[in-house]
Amino acid sequence: MAKRIYFFGGGQADGDGTQKPLLGGKGAGLHEMTRLGIPVPPGFTITTEVCTAFFASGERIPEGLLDDARAAIRRVEEIVGTRFGDPENPLLVSVRSGARASMPGMMDTILNLGLNESIVAGLGARTQNPRFALDAYRRFIVTYADVVLGIHRKRFDDALEIARRKAAAARGMAEAQRLTVAELQRKLPDSMFDEETLRSLVKEQRRIVQEATGAPFPDDPWAQLEGAIASVFRSWNNNRAKTYRKMHDIPEAWGTACNVQAMVFGNLGEDSGTGVAFTRDPSTGEKRFFGEWLPNAQGEDVVAGVRTPNPIAKEQGNDEGSLEVRMPEAYAELVRTQERLEKHFRDMQDLEFTVQSGKLYLLQTRNGKRTGRAGVRIAVEMAKEGLIDQREAVMRVDPASIEQLLHPTIDPKAPKKLLARGLPASPGAASGQVVFHADEAERKAAQGLPVILVRAETSPEDIHGMKAANGILTARGGMTSHAAVVARGMGKCCVAGCSAVAVSYETATMTVTIYDELGRPTDTVSVKGGDVITLDGASGSVYLGAIPTAPAALSSEYEELMRWADTARRLKVLANADTGADARTARSYGAEGIGLCRTEHMFFDDKRIAAVREMILARDVDARKAALAKLLPYQREDFTAIFQEMSGLPVTIRLLDPPLHEFLPQERKQIEDLAATMKVRPADLVRKVEELHELNPMLGHRGCRLGVTFPEINEMQARAIFEAACDVAERGSGAQDAEGDPKPRASNGAPPKLEIMIPLAMTRKELALAKATIERVASEVFAEKGRSVSYLFGTMIELPRAALRASELAEEAEFFSFGTNDLTQTTMGISRDDAGKFLGAYVEAAILPKDPFTSLDTEGVGELVAIACERGRKTRPNLELGVCGEHGGDPSSIRFFERVKLDYVSCSPLRVPIARLAAAQAALAEGAATTLQTTA
Amino acid sequence: MAKRIYFFGGGQADGDGTQKPLLGGKGAGLHEMTRLGIPVPPGFTITTEVCTAFFASGERIPEGLLDDARAAIRRVEEIVGTRFGDPENPLLVSVRSGARASMPGMMDTILNLGLNESIVAGLGARTQNPRFALDAYRRFIVTYADVVLGIHRKRFDDALEIARRKAAAARGMAEAQRLTVAELQRKLPDSMFDEETLRSLVKEQRRIVQEATGAPFPDDPWAQLEGAIASVFRSWNNNRAKTYRKMHDIPEAWGTACNVQAMVFGNLGEDSGTGVAFTRDPSTGEKRFFGEWLPNAQGEDVVAGVRTPNPIAKEQGNDEGSLEVRMPEAYAELVRTQERLEKHFRDMQDLEFTVQSGKLYLLQTRNGKRTGRAGVRIAVEMAKEGLIDQREAVMRVDPASIEQLLHPTIDPKAPKKLLARGLPASPGAASGQVVFHADEAERKAAQGLPVILVRAETSPEDIHGMKAANGILTARGGMTSHAAVVARGMGKCCVAGCSAVAVSYETATMTVTIYDELGRPTDTVSVKGGDVITLDGASGSVYLGAIPTAPAALSSEYEELMRWADTARRLKVLANADTGADARTARSYGAEGIGLCRTEHMFFDDKRIAAVREMILARDVDARKAALAKLLPYQREDFTAIFQEMSGLPVTIRLLDPPLHEFLPQERKQIEDLAATMKVRPADLVRKVEELHELNPMLGHRGCRLGVTFPEINEMQARAIFEAACDVAERGSGAQDAEGDPKPRASNGAPPKLEIMIPLAMTRKELALAKATIERVASEVFAEKGRSVSYLFGTMIELPRAALRASELAEEAEFFSFGTNDLTQTTMGISRDDAGKFLGAYVEAAILPKDPFTSLDTEGVGELVAIACERGRKTRPNLELGVCGEHGGDPSSIRFFERVKLDYVSCSPLRVPIARLAAAQAALAEGAATTLQTTA
Repeated sequence: MAKRIYFFGGGQADGDGTQKPLLGGKGAGLHEMTRLGIPVPPGFTITTEVCTAFFASGERIPEGLLDDARAAIRRVEEIVGTRFGDPENPLLVSVRSGARASMPGMMDTILNLGLNESIVAGLGARTQNPRFALDAYRRFIVTYADVVLGIHRKRFDDALEIARRKAAAARGMAEAQRLTVAELQRKLPDSMFDEETLRSLVKEQRRIVQEATGAPFPDDPWAQLEGAIASVFRSWNNNRAKTYRKMHDIPEAWGTACNVQAMVFGNLGEDSGTGVAFTRDPSTGEKRFFGEWLPNAQGEDVVAGVRTPNPIAKEQGNDEGSLEVRMPEAYAELVRTQERLEKHFRDMQDLEFTVQSGKLYLLQTRNGKRTGRAGVRIAVEMAKEGLIDQREAVMRVDPASIEQLLHPTIDPKAPKKLLARGLPASPGAASGQVVFHADEAERKAAQGLPVILVRAETSPEDIHGMKAANGILTARGGMTSHAAVVARGMGKCCVAGCSAVAVSYETATMTVTIYDELGRPTDTVSVKGGDVITLDGASGSVYLGAIPTAPAALSSEYEELMRWADTARRLKVLANADTGADARTARSYGAEGIGLCRTEHMFFDDKRIAAVREMILARDVDARKAALAKLLPYQREDFTAIFQEMSGLPVTIRLLDPPLHEFLPQERKQIEDLAATMKVRPADLVRKVEELHELNPMLGHRGCRLGVTFPEINEMQARAIFEAACDVAERGSGAQDAEGDPKPRASNGAPPKLEIMIPLAMTRKELALAKATIERVASEVFAEKGRSVSYLFGTMIELPRAALRASELAEEAEFFSFGTNDLTQTTMGISRDDAGKFLGAYVEAAILPKDPFTSLDTEGVGELVAIACERGRKTRPNLELGVCGEHGGDPSSIRFFERVKLDYVSCSPLRVPIARLAAAQAALAEGAATTLQTTA
Repeated sequence: MAKRIYFFGGGQADGDGTQKPLLGGKGAGLHEMTRLGIPVPPGFTITTEVCTAFFASGERIPEGLLDDARAAIRRVEEIVGTRFGDPENPLLVSVRSGARASMPGMMDTILNLGLNESIVAGLGARTQNPRFALDAYRRFIVTYADVVLGIHRKRFDDALEIARRKAAAARGMAEAQRLTVAELQRKLPDSMFDEETLRSLVKEQRRIVQEATGAPFPDDPWAQLEGAIASVFRSWNNNRAKTYRKMHDIPEAWGTACNVQAMVFGNLGEDSGTGVAFTRDPSTGEKRFFGEWLPNAQGEDVVAGVRTPNPIAKEQGNDEGSLEVRMPEAYAELVRTQERLEKHFRDMQDLEFTVQSGKLYLLQTRNGKRTGRAGVRIAVEMAKEGLIDQREAVMRVDPASIEQLLHPTIDPKAPKKLLARGLPASPGAASGQVVFHADEAERKAAQGLPVILVRAETSPEDIHGMKAANGILTARGGMTSHAAVVARGMGKCCVAGCSAVAVSYETATMTVTIYDELGRPTDTVSVKGGDVITLDGASGSVYLGAIPTAPAALSSEYEELMRWADTARRLKVLANADTGADARTARSYGAEGIGLCRTEHMFFDDKRIAAVREMILARDVDARKAALAKLLPYQREDFTAIFQEMSGLPVTIRLLDPPLHEFLPQERKQIEDLAATMKVRPADLVRKVEELHELNPMLGHRGCRLGVTFPEINEMQARAIFEAACDVAERGSGAQDAEGDPKPRASNGAPPKLEIMIPLAMTRKELALAKATIERVASEVFAEKGRSVSYLFGTMIELPRAALRASELAEEAEFFSFGTNDLTQTTMGISRDDAGKFLGAYVEAAILPKDPFTSLDTEGVGELVAIACERGRKTRPNLELGVCGEHGGDPSSIRFFERVKLDYVSCSPLRVPIARLAAAQAALAEGAATTLQTTA
């Protein structure tokens, strides 16, 4: 049988800091600190394996475990010199949960265990502090009754308040009866209760327990211990803990350890105290010892917030309350200890300590939580200090936390009224007037008014309004809905799929249903156009009114960390960008090119949409060509702007992808206007619009299928691309000729590395057809321009069939770009626009580990990616492989892309830094990085 | 270099009947007949490889080929005793196309080649028949000018008519000028032209050629031969041939052979003649020698239809015109020859023969085309005669042709006006009044009026109208649109996706655009509700008015053939059936169970839809359960009816699949009515309907996803299934107890083999959840009923992810049923409802070989099927595997399913016979059948 109990104490420990899976984080820390000779009260850890066995056997404590615990308690007694259950000289213990990963406050802890009436009396006598003993007892009863016996804490709170009022009356506090509970609590805090009050409170508490359970409160310390251990294990599966695990991807199977440890008391008098501390500032990352403490208190008092804690170190304004001033010796030892611990664990530590009658004890150490900003600074400074190497600094920072550095954030301290919560679709924070139409957004924004565009869902017709708005709120759609994808592309704050919101365009109102904690609707709030709301794109929260925000700011430590990451990573990081402005943003965030330039967004501009519609509604090829000819100069202009920004870098242009009906007006009025413009009968136009309507547009007439039926579109786009590329190359070479006088925008003068990409292919022949058209147009343009540019021809892999037939596709394609959004949709049969109705339930029920549009389904979609890589490379060993779906910016997906050895990932500009860091971590984890400094 | 010219003649031949790929069907037949010693004029075949080389080199005749042809002509001359180009004793030849597969009339043929002015004179002298020689010459000029020189035949027709009028005038036919062309043609047919007329006609024809080409008609026989050979090759790629190949799946790459053969003449006088014959009746299959001939005529006269041909054998009413009477010796030899040929080729032969001056020549033999009915009879009778074995009889019959036996057909001779052509979505023929609404269809049908339901597209709300209608016509949707699938399931005639039709419900009118041959709109026809139209579901044709139809009739030969097929096949054939009536139909066609029972169609019944909607719109679980409780008795009733029909056989029930919004009304009026019924505000209902709306319902909240969010639905369905199964088992055992007095409908008393199927799964956990619910309900029902029934639990494989994760899915599932419709949609990213817009172009451009919804895409979708079979069986070796998509009734797909060793296919009831035959052929072809008689 595996060892079930690990002892620590007296400078020796059975376990060590590496054994988090078995001993939990807290346990491993206690064992390690004990080994280091740091003063830790002795105790023992019951392993997580016992927890697993406990659940496997229907919540029964394994046979023999309590005997082992009894033996371990004996060893504690020897070290401490007290005895468990001995009224003369009692040992009290704490019983605490502690899982592999920190789950703060989610599971149960019981302090002061081992008391009963006679032991309280003995403890009071021995400490010469009967009030302290009684106080410990009444705290223990409440916690034990709540945690182990399942009696609601409220009943004890009521008894406490009655006792407080009695005590106040006894003290002649005449006004006591008029005060509120909170006012009275401040006037007469628990710490001022006298023995008499505490004694009668304990009596009342024991009565409550008797009444609730039909049995007396357990007086046998060993029975108490057994109940506490079972409850700690059981608390692994309480609802809070389960929810927390879901949020943080902690597996159900891990289980918690249980730590039983001798109590030390911070509330034995004014030479005692308790506190928490961080070895560096967890908000800013600054290297300073930082923490709070309370004299004459137990740990829970610090958390309760009734008393305001003092700083540990001297600080402007509160020097005399500091531990440094009040207990200089204990403080000096704490500073030495924290330095040792940070050095030992090589990370910022979060400490809990207690000073009992002037002697310092450490109760916990763990790696401290920190903000994104602090995480970056700590990692970089520790590397510079030589505490860790650059490799470890890169690995330390959660790529997702980088996002906080790039966006404005809501002021956490500002008062705010939460209206509703949607999906955190695109980070950042924004306030503005509610508007319901794109045109209105544009109009108001032009007047300098900040606006939030609110829509049931957005469509490409809303793009100009989204551009104009400070933020976007939609009632429907998931993390990869149109609104979410476009907003992320624009780096604009967006809350999507906010189902509590019902939008009425007629009345220009959004009606928000307010839910209580249990998800029951309690009220509705009506928000009119013009009312101000604030969005928090990082959390998905929607607030009423304008909430102050803090702007984004990138630190020098960030720049340094990214340099290290760039050295380490193998994957290139490109950006999805559709305009010159997007391209500039992308480069500013470190993008090494454009992995996806969607040409369709260019079509929605006011000046162009008429020609686009003319093209779509054309009666024959000639009319279609005439309309396309009008679009050509616009497209060429777009490409020229992008190519200039991306001189010398790859630019991957996807030919027209969406179904054509997306470009047509859907509302009666708009159709009539268009009919008038086009000089056709509205009825004919309605019929044409209806004809183009599709039941499942995602699986419809789009992508390269458009090029098969309307090759003229590909022709026009290819012409625009090649003309623009030749023009940029021309200017670049001109700049080189005119020595010393380069034109201002020509950068280094090189043309971009052009890649032309065919969407939605599933057969070799589709590619062959498109390639023939493109090659023909290329040779025409090159002949006209008298110069040529080189380019690659490739395809997106967005359909399972394309992945399966990759070996054939690679006969035509020189690169593959995985469109993992669509590949996820087709492989899993989930429409990203409609998934909101059930995907939540799927993640809730752990059917799927995560939203597969956020984090790649490596088992299903991933297998197709791997198949396509393997088959494609077999046909064409130098096939270029990349991904341009949303997953290109997701750290866990990037890890997978490193594993299958893609050449690059491409993501929205604002995720480029995240991708750079994640790619570095993936390279380091997969052993693909070799160049980064790996010794301190 | 491969041999390019194969000679035949004088009882010897370079080739034989097995060489169709190289020599074409016609060539191989000529070589084989020559080898058999049957009188065939000598000649030679230029191989199909030369045709391929011809196209590969830009339509150039390969070097040296003409020298080889010259040598071969010399050998012909030796046998025949005439010389090519010799005016004294000229050899004339025919130059004919002949591909591997018969493409009747699609490619070019030139007769009488080798004539010029002087040779005509010589031939006239030698045959003592100058009129004959001139007639041959003028026919040759027209054909050669048309085929080789590209001069439109119309110009020669005009010249012919002028000549005819002149001749008529010369003969003093006073009325000639008033007669129409056709009348005059009957009064003075070509055969009555005298030498003078023919001579001046030839002169005029040569003038026309000179005028059109600027050069004289080629007089050099060798030049004529070269031109003819090139033209025959070129005709492989004419538009007619290309279209025909597409229709019959003949690869472009095959190419045609070219046969050059000595001419024999059926128009040398009254002891000459020409005809075609079949060794058995090609319409009925009856074993009788059957054919037509014309005395003193060339082949083209038989086809032209100006003269009515005579029967070959004596026949009631036309004995004296028969070859049997007119040329008894030639007839006797022909009968002997046809018997030999049928025996030799072991199949019904289609012969062409010519009698020249009393001597019989065979010009062609090939396996004759036949109707579906004849095909079955011939195969079965030949097997009984011992000509072929049963195995070959089964292989001989095209499974698709079986369909003709099962449906009424349009009378081919009836006069009819074609309105439009759509997709042949469900076979059969039906006439009736046009109605535009399902309710109206039901009302009129109840009055005994035959109706055709016409809709832009159908939805599940139209099912009752589809049931009531004789046929269904839709303007939109493909071969697997809702209308098509449901109609096939009902065995009801349907023409779908008839894009020339525009339906206006407001005016109760369908407007049909009429197109000319070039696809240009020429007219519109307005058809009102109440007007009568006729649908031909086999061809997709829509006719105005009522066209007579012939009913379906199954022959005893059909029954025999199917018995043999059933012995040979390995795959079981099940049917897709949703009601007791469907189930009965399915069994009558030989289904061995139900592979797919869709429960949702049951929901649309008038009595039920209200409860269904109540369930969907329920505010909470309790309200949903209350609504489901109302549905339970209906569902149980449905299942009971099916189980009784399928006693002892597998019945696979799919739990609810479609997205719930399909059950909700969409039109304003209907929503208002429903709101009134449900006592809710219409606005609330509208909002709920909108909430449920999906952008891509195919990829939405449907299938087992419904069961995850609303497990109550699965509960109700499982309860209905188990209660019904227990009831049927109860009655069955009751019937057995009451000996000799079984209840009439209880058949053999066994309960069905129940299989419960979860749609659209993609993860093991989805199945585990559903299974837990089903097992719980099962044990509840079994406890209540005091009996249990066994059942299998399984899943559909409809998503690529499901196929890839098959090993996990098989941990829960005891069977897989491939839903290849949806699997095709997701693997290829094609919505079957929207594919009409481009799938035609895809097949046209040979991007896809066939509509993948008709015939499985074995390379893409098929790989996923194969992967799922392999991985599923690895986990669970006895995993049952079947298919229930539309492909389950498609012969080429069935071949694939045999290859991956599925256990069964399931298809719509009317395709069951096709599937049985196709499965037998697949088993025979794949070597999986062992039990069938394989020797004659």
